[in-house]
Amino acid sequence: MEKGLELALMSRWLVILAGGRGERFWPLSRIMHPKQFLTLIGDKSMLESTRDRVASLIDDAHTFVVTGVDYVDKVSLNLPHVPPDQILGEPRGCNTAPSIAWAAESIFRRDSEAVMLVLPSDHVIQHASRFVELAHRALTLAERYGGFYTFGIVPTHPETGYGYIERDGSAFDDATALEVKRFVEKPPREVAEEMVQSGRYFWNSGMFAFRVGELLNAVQEYLPMLAEGITDLVDNPQRARDIFSEIPAISIDHGIMEKAPAVYVLPADIGWDDVGTFGALARLLPRDGEQNAAHGYAIFVESENVTAISDGPLVSFVGVKDLYVVATQDAVLILSPDKSQDVRKVVEALKQGGNHEHLL
Amino acid sequence: MEKGLELALMSRWLVILAGGRGERFWPLSRIMHPKQFLTLIGDKSMLESTRDRVASLIDDAHTFVVTGVDYVDKVSLNLPHVPPDQILGEPRGCNTAPSIAWAAESIFRRDSEAVMLVLPSDHVIQHASRFVELAHRALTLAERYGGFYTFGIVPTHPETGYGYIERDGSAFDDATALEVKRFVEKPPREVAEEMVQSGRYFWNSGMFAFRVGELLNAVQEYLPMLAEGITDLVDNPQRARDIFSEIPAISIDHGIMEKAPAVYVLPADIGWDDVGTFGALARLLPRDGEQNAAHGYAIFVESENVTAISDGPLVSFVGVKDLYVVATQDAVLILSPDKSQDVRKVVEALKQGGNHEHLL
Repeated sequence: MEKGLELALMSRWLVILAGGRGERFWPLSRIMHPKQFLTLIGDKSMLESTRDRVASLIDDAHTFVVTGVDYVDKVSLNLPHVPPDQILGEPRGCNTAPSIAWAAESIFRRDSEAVMLVLPSDHVIQHASRFVELAHRALTLAERYGGFYTFGIVPTHPETGYGYIERDGSAFDDATALEVKRFVEKPPREVAEEMVQSGRYFWNSGMFAFRVGELLNAVQEYLPMLAEGITDLVDNPQRARDIFSEIPAISIDHGIMEKAPAVYVLPADIGWDDVGTFGALARLLPRDGEQNAAHGYAIFVESENVTAISDGPLVSFVGVKDLYVVATQDAVLILSPDKSQDVRKVVEALKQGGNHEHLL
Repeated sequence: MEKGLELALMSRWLVILAGGRGERFWPLSRIMHPKQFLTLIGDKSMLESTRDRVASLIDDAHTFVVTGVDYVDKVSLNLPHVPPDQILGEPRGCNTAPSIAWAAESIFRRDSEAVMLVLPSDHVIQHASRFVELAHRALTLAERYGGFYTFGIVPTHPETGYGYIERDGSAFDDATALEVKRFVEKPPREVAEEMVQSGRYFWNSGMFAFRVGELLNAVQEYLPMLAEGITDLVDNPQRARDIFSEIPAISIDHGIMEKAPAVYVLPADIGWDDVGTFGALARLLPRDGEQNAAHGYAIFVESENVTAISDGPLVSFVGVKDLYVVATQDAVLILSPDKSQDVRKVVEALKQGGNHEHLL
């Protein structure tokens, strides 16, 4: 069979991972309204932006969303053109391998010759057209040659909140895809610094492209218990709760990508950010001459380097500096810029205090 | 006539000055809900606390409240037992002399032999029983000897936000009342320091006791235009708007007390505070081991010297220090502790921006 023909026969599918609980964005995000549903940048939710960004590559009818069972209705409202039976609700979060395997098995039953693009639902990509070009290239490579394709972000600083991908010496397909040597989990500071300096590492963006059948074969080989569970799940969706209590909770990176041969990374200079903390969001907002930034209505008097994020209340500042402030009608958070990771301590305090009013 | 008999014949009246607009407490206070109606300390409004504090001396039936015309209904709701015709609504704020003269003239028409106690509606007095004893003494002195009695707070620091009263050398009535040498307007820092060190100065609390007739005579003598206006006003209350546009806006201190003979100060160690700013309120709140204080629901994580004042929203802090935060459902203010006087700058910005939603 000629390659052009094979290409034309493979259908392309999008799988959006939207299971995040977004506690690092409390009080803006709530248990029932996590980050992927927030309008942090622009006027669309993170989830909508994720879906719309690749509209020229894959349509709604070929889209799956994997989310928490409690969020299925919210996803449906947010993406009304995605077929409801393609919104998969997990009864419990089990990391990415089960989510991706479930979507892959579901797609495989529709078209065994499909390729899929996996995207987290809550990341920012500032250079959308460059990303779309890259996604198209990754899907094309998967269609043409098979293999697993990841998107490696050229690191701008020694971030300790991300995983890293080390490239191998050899390039593949005219250097648009490099062989992956290994995946590195979130590193300590010194290690991150060394990796960034070496020029051989990328940030792991959590986005992938591959053939559906190839992924399922890899699951069968490296995570056989998961493969069994997922087959059972698609055959008997009413057993989801039981099955999810038994399958292994493991990431696709750790469970598959680190073990599979033919894993490639596409260097991606696409203005990517996982917006994992208020600090990350603060970096994305435009600033005035005093380095103040606002998402929502804010008044700054004699203040500098202040970030105000509000989904309603007016937030005003007099004579303060170096602060993040997040305001909603019923809860306000005031945060030191270097404590952006510690929002969960407040969430923990609320949980321990049995305060559901401010969490839900 | 024997003095005891004369005493028994004089009725005692309370005059509460409740005209403040309380912009320094925005966003907690609003134009339609100024400081005297707030519950800043304890569970009663400042106005209610002022009225209740002297319940053992003077009852509701003998109480006048002078307020802005827009606040008359609010005062009525707050003090339902004060006769409605004794709540005087000023069409425009003209400082204290007109307010006090209006109340005095109104009382004089009911009882020309009355004495009156004048109290601002929005001050805190922590040692209430000591204050009541002192007020009783001031009223008794006025009944017995005539004269104007002020309450001088022993200064604890060189406050530049208050006026001061200088005592004269000579004492009156067993040193419970000292002759006043002069009144001093809000001083610059160095002057305030000298005054506090000298031991001869008190803070002017704005509270007074005197015979109603004697006050009206003094108004006649020192502020004849005001005397004329007030007589006209009590005769023709429907002309209030016109009259208030013509009478002089002047304080009782400046207009009367500085000129009258027989002005005395009673040293008052009563835990007084005019709570004029968030800084003053912050000083009154109990603090935890990290010097954090909350009025309302707050969570402090790794934070110190933070004051949170909320009339609803949960306010949470992570890793910050030296802040005042004031939160309401629709507006949040974050303030440096040394900028407590500058809240009005935000209010000004709102006014200039035509933002009535957050002011009213």
